[in-house]
Amino acid sequence: MNEPRDLTALITPRSIAVIGASNEPYKFGGRPIRYMLQAPFEGPIYPINPRESEIQGLKAYADIRDVGQPIDMAIVTVPAPAVVSVVEAAAEAGVKSCVIFSSSFAEVGGEGAVWQERLREISAQSGMLICGPNCLGTLTPATWAIGTFSSMFDHGWPKPGGLTIMTQSGAVGAHILVQARELGLGIRTWVATGNEVDVDVADCIAFGARDPETKVITAYMEGCKNADRLIAALKLARAARKPVIAMKVGASEVGAAAAATHTASLAGADAVFDAVFRQYGVYRAHSLEEMMDVAAAALTSPLPKGRRLGIVTVSGGAGVMASDEAEKIGLEVPELPAIAQDGVKAAMPYASARNPVDVTAMATNQFDLLGKGLEAMLEHGKVDMTMIFLSAVGFSDRIMVGMNEIFPAIRKKYPDAIMAVSMLCNDENRRKFEANQYLVMEDMNRGLRILEALARIREGFDRGGDDDPLPDAPVTGAIPATTPNEYEAAQLLAAAGVPYPEMKVATSAVEARAAVEALGTRTVMKILSADIQHKSDIGGVKLNIGPEEAEAAFEAIMAGAREHAPKAVIDGVLVAPMAKGGVECIIGVQNDPVFGPTVMFGLGGVFVEVLKDVTFRVAPFGRAEARRMIGELKGLPLLQGARGAAPADLDALAKILSRLSVFAAANADRFESIDVNPILAGPDGAVALDAVIAPKG
Amino acid sequence: MNEPRDLTALITPRSIAVIGASNEPYKFGGRPIRYMLQAPFEGPIYPINPRESEIQGLKAYADIRDVGQPIDMAIVTVPAPAVVSVVEAAAEAGVKSCVIFSSSFAEVGGEGAVWQERLREISAQSGMLICGPNCLGTLTPATWAIGTFSSMFDHGWPKPGGLTIMTQSGAVGAHILVQARELGLGIRTWVATGNEVDVDVADCIAFGARDPETKVITAYMEGCKNADRLIAALKLARAARKPVIAMKVGASEVGAAAAATHTASLAGADAVFDAVFRQYGVYRAHSLEEMMDVAAAALTSPLPKGRRLGIVTVSGGAGVMASDEAEKIGLEVPELPAIAQDGVKAAMPYASARNPVDVTAMATNQFDLLGKGLEAMLEHGKVDMTMIFLSAVGFSDRIMVGMNEIFPAIRKKYPDAIMAVSMLCNDENRRKFEANQYLVMEDMNRGLRILEALARIREGFDRGGDDDPLPDAPVTGAIPATTPNEYEAAQLLAAAGVPYPEMKVATSAVEARAAVEALGTRTVMKILSADIQHKSDIGGVKLNIGPEEAEAAFEAIMAGAREHAPKAVIDGVLVAPMAKGGVECIIGVQNDPVFGPTVMFGLGGVFVEVLKDVTFRVAPFGRAEARRMIGELKGLPLLQGARGAAPADLDALAKILSRLSVFAAANADRFESIDVNPILAGPDGAVALDAVIAPKG
Repeated sequence: MNEPRDLTALITPRSIAVIGASNEPYKFGGRPIRYMLQAPFEGPIYPINPRESEIQGLKAYADIRDVGQPIDMAIVTVPAPAVVSVVEAAAEAGVKSCVIFSSSFAEVGGEGAVWQERLREISAQSGMLICGPNCLGTLTPATWAIGTFSSMFDHGWPKPGGLTIMTQSGAVGAHILVQARELGLGIRTWVATGNEVDVDVADCIAFGARDPETKVITAYMEGCKNADRLIAALKLARAARKPVIAMKVGASEVGAAAAATHTASLAGADAVFDAVFRQYGVYRAHSLEEMMDVAAAALTSPLPKGRRLGIVTVSGGAGVMASDEAEKIGLEVPELPAIAQDGVKAAMPYASARNPVDVTAMATNQFDLLGKGLEAMLEHGKVDMTMIFLSAVGFSDRIMVGMNEIFPAIRKKYPDAIMAVSMLCNDENRRKFEANQYLVMEDMNRGLRILEALARIREGFDRGGDDDPLPDAPVTGAIPATTPNEYEAAQLLAAAGVPYPEMKVATSAVEARAAVEALGTRTVMKILSADIQHKSDIGGVKLNIGPEEAEAAFEAIMAGAREHAPKAVIDGVLVAPMAKGGVECIIGVQNDPVFGPTVMFGLGGVFVEVLKDVTFRVAPFGRAEARRMIGELKGLPLLQGARGAAPADLDALAKILSRLSVFAAANADRFESIDVNPILAGPDGAVALDAVIAPKG
Repeated sequence: MNEPRDLTALITPRSIAVIGASNEPYKFGGRPIRYMLQAPFEGPIYPINPRESEIQGLKAYADIRDVGQPIDMAIVTVPAPAVVSVVEAAAEAGVKSCVIFSSSFAEVGGEGAVWQERLREISAQSGMLICGPNCLGTLTPATWAIGTFSSMFDHGWPKPGGLTIMTQSGAVGAHILVQARELGLGIRTWVATGNEVDVDVADCIAFGARDPETKVITAYMEGCKNADRLIAALKLARAARKPVIAMKVGASEVGAAAAATHTASLAGADAVFDAVFRQYGVYRAHSLEEMMDVAAAALTSPLPKGRRLGIVTVSGGAGVMASDEAEKIGLEVPELPAIAQDGVKAAMPYASARNPVDVTAMATNQFDLLGKGLEAMLEHGKVDMTMIFLSAVGFSDRIMVGMNEIFPAIRKKYPDAIMAVSMLCNDENRRKFEANQYLVMEDMNRGLRILEALARIREGFDRGGDDDPLPDAPVTGAIPATTPNEYEAAQLLAAAGVPYPEMKVATSAVEARAAVEALGTRTVMKILSADIQHKSDIGGVKLNIGPEEAEAAFEAIMAGAREHAPKAVIDGVLVAPMAKGGVECIIGVQNDPVFGPTVMFGLGGVFVEVLKDVTFRVAPFGRAEARRMIGELKGLPLLQGARGAAPADLDALAKILSRLSVFAAANADRFESIDVNPILAGPDGAVALDAVIAPKG
């Protein structure tokens, strides 16, 4: 079921019917025909309308079954109550895909939800793709297949190219499409999926991943109905090294409430979406502007191999500014090798040559200085990308004469160098730079953030895939249907790879003493009962117990349980060694309603309680991913030996997280949550001190 | 000395001489004359050049002393070695201000530094204002006084208006000026101060604060030579309720190094600059784009009274997006009162009315829906500002017909409402909205950040000034020239308002026992010596000492000191009560090279050691400011009672910080640092457990 659908009939249909076609050029049933006639769409268009013989000059048909020709796509514009029957007719006519503009389906509930379910059945039975209902449809500029009623064509046409845009929201999607047009980005296809009765975000991303024409994918998401398909699609895109730039909304309380009323989709925990995006190399944008900034750059630029940034500037101040921003966002500004500095100095004895290279405003009179500084950087600087600050040069025709000599020549000499130019400019001068594959960005700091995004996307590609296999230890235990007690839970988790110390169960005072003696160390004794959550509150935990105190401790624990939890089933007392130090961590697994088992890791104490310093990954994942997960904690220095402690074995921790994720994934249907809190991490690995598993139900 | 200079002669000179005037229109000595003739500048222009009788059609003078007319401003364009003598001549001629373009002064050192010092003397002796040297100069569009060689006028003229722009960097300043022009912002004046031998950032901000034409001030800073004058200027601007929007660079290591080579200014600790900006209500921008975004909005919009945001949208998705961003940046999206929701529902039964108000895409066909939804929000919504999402409406002439009926009428009815419109648009349609005082922002999330900036600026104004007086307790102690021991330091700090427990000094075992008995509690005993920093390392600290252990403890401490620190002067043993709990905090005071005594506050343990979770204020400051300072800590919940502790008395902590700041300011010349670490904060106030003062020298 995770196999992506073949969207060819929806993206590049060769013949299109419009059901509910209209002669009124501004009605929903009139617009797609008008636009396709204008564009023009080369294939046949079949207007379907029982009351007209001709629509906008085209022969009209009363019923789609009357057409008698192959139809790749049918656009459905009739009111909701009429939709099911025309879609059934389309399926009968062998139509390969439907785009349903009509609204009042699941998003309003009641009868609409019933109709939508029927559409789902038709799609499943016939294999006909359905996009929508309640959607703004599709557009593919290469063929001008226009399956949308968006009025954007009234004020301009987008151009064909390599950007595949998917959106769950129609209005936001239209906005993105106009943004792309105004930025001059070439569009491969644009799909607004609406209620997603069939074709969904995952299908669109998978299409982009496998489509040779697509270079970059953007996704505007409000929710996700099928996480497995989404993840499968993201893996496809990563394997194809196609950047996926996503904007996911609904993180805030008000936002999630608004999203719930807006569509029928489930918002899902934002932190988990964030984890999925990080895990599968998706660049998450936080505004439409940022999404399009990064998409535009990814469409035209190679991805930098690393984070080493060269800065060439005509202003010392701008060099300072760039250095600040670079440090803030994690780009390196390495000091240039001596040979590169010598190159700069040879051209300009007074230039700063360390990096930033400041060729000073003199370079706007002696243009070759700029070229020589830049060449020294590119030839010997060993940088992965270069930011060139040219201030307002792009408005000066006088200076542009010089620039037009230098920059095309440098591009020719360094065809693969990633070079961004920050300058204020008019459109004409911008185009001159862009024609030579320079990324032109008015604001330098914003430009640096875009370069960082490209570097991050590349890192996501480089680390994805087979180099991080899941642990091959077999999953032995299965979570039972009833709540296991702590000992049972610990046994299950220990088999799954979470280290627990040797523990014993005592059902009498004598056994308790024997257990302590057998463990041969000071112990903690805890009431053992799946029915008792807060053991300490009822005197159910005794610390630092030696053999001579064991019997009394046992009796006291049992007495407390009898008194305070008379109805609890008591399995005895758990006897475990006292913990010996290490950094207190917590591991939890939640069964996310969207993404299923999701592993959380954090540090204990104030880190989790005050700072909410935790990190997530969707199960299962390999050790390398787990290691990155640990690396995201703000409190990481504590695990690395801050405050004088010995550094914890992070690889051991990563192995635990990875193995637990495999166990959780294998038991996805059997549990609500798993808590390992605390687990103490030290230089010799980690040891868990508690185990709680809540089965499903 | 903190009195700002009167910059009238520099900003609005009525007569201008150009020393080193040139007939070559593109030379530095030719440009200002050419531009002023083009503009034109109405007052007399006096070219000074001993080799020409006429320059660009104007009568030239061999020496400025030959002019024989009052001269408000002289522009100096001669090479550095000639500058001192022509500036002396200008001073002799009674010139009121000089702008010195020439470079090679303090920024290159050597002879240049000597010349610069001489310029400082001339200015001080004559009272003549000097802007520069090594600066790009000045511009005031209202009179076209053009004291700059920037070539920006070759490609367009800025318009006069209310924005005062100050910049320490010439090239960045030119960039900002072109940005402002392209955004259509009206400029009051623009001053690039370069090496700041005389006129500095503080003068320019103070000018803007007192100048009736200035509405908003932007400052691009790389450093600060006189913190007192800067703070005085910021106070003036705040009192005048004029937004100061600053970009301060040099935060990064590479950036600070680049700044040091770029100008002669001292970067200063970035965290302290940040504190100063927060303390005095300056909005700190982190990119030029952000600086101009906020300046543009502040120029045209009132400042919101609070953080309550109304959202009106033609797209449910956009409403979700806006809600997310609002929560992230701290704007509230309150549910609308019933009467407002009823108003929305009356117009559109199917609209979401809670806030965001989603009038749906239907409003782009039935325009009045949008107007009615917006009016319901404005009339009854009790919001401080409204974001209206119109998608790509601004490109659709058809829809704009409707918009042009609605929006001017709404503005007329609600003249003071703060309304931002997020839409993609062409310039013409943008201007139509802007003509009615709508803030037009293409990207909605970026627009929300601008609205938040306006709210923050207003908050800075509202809390500034007399409502937060300094504590009036007299400062009694003075920090001595030699390092005080812990007891002496604690006495000083106690008198300054930092609570210490009763402590006793024992110089014999018998005294030690008597001290413990007198304190009547378990005690800590510590070696008392200004020469011993790490007391524990030499066995100099004994915990939990009762009377019976006192004598032995004393002897052990003294023996340890004799053995491990034989050269230390020992003042005895300090006896203090054992601490009784509370949240561990630290207070420090550093004497910042730029801003002087700067108070730091943070939580102890992992918060300071791992997370660097500390906050700063420049001394002195009042209790309210101290309270805000405490509120900035990420670990604040711990002080508020997280983890089950009783909430600490934050007002008591604030009082301590404020009083200590007054003490530190009074002793500014006498110390390097003060450390109160730890101080335990609890519900009954705080108690300090240690005291270290490092005198100056």
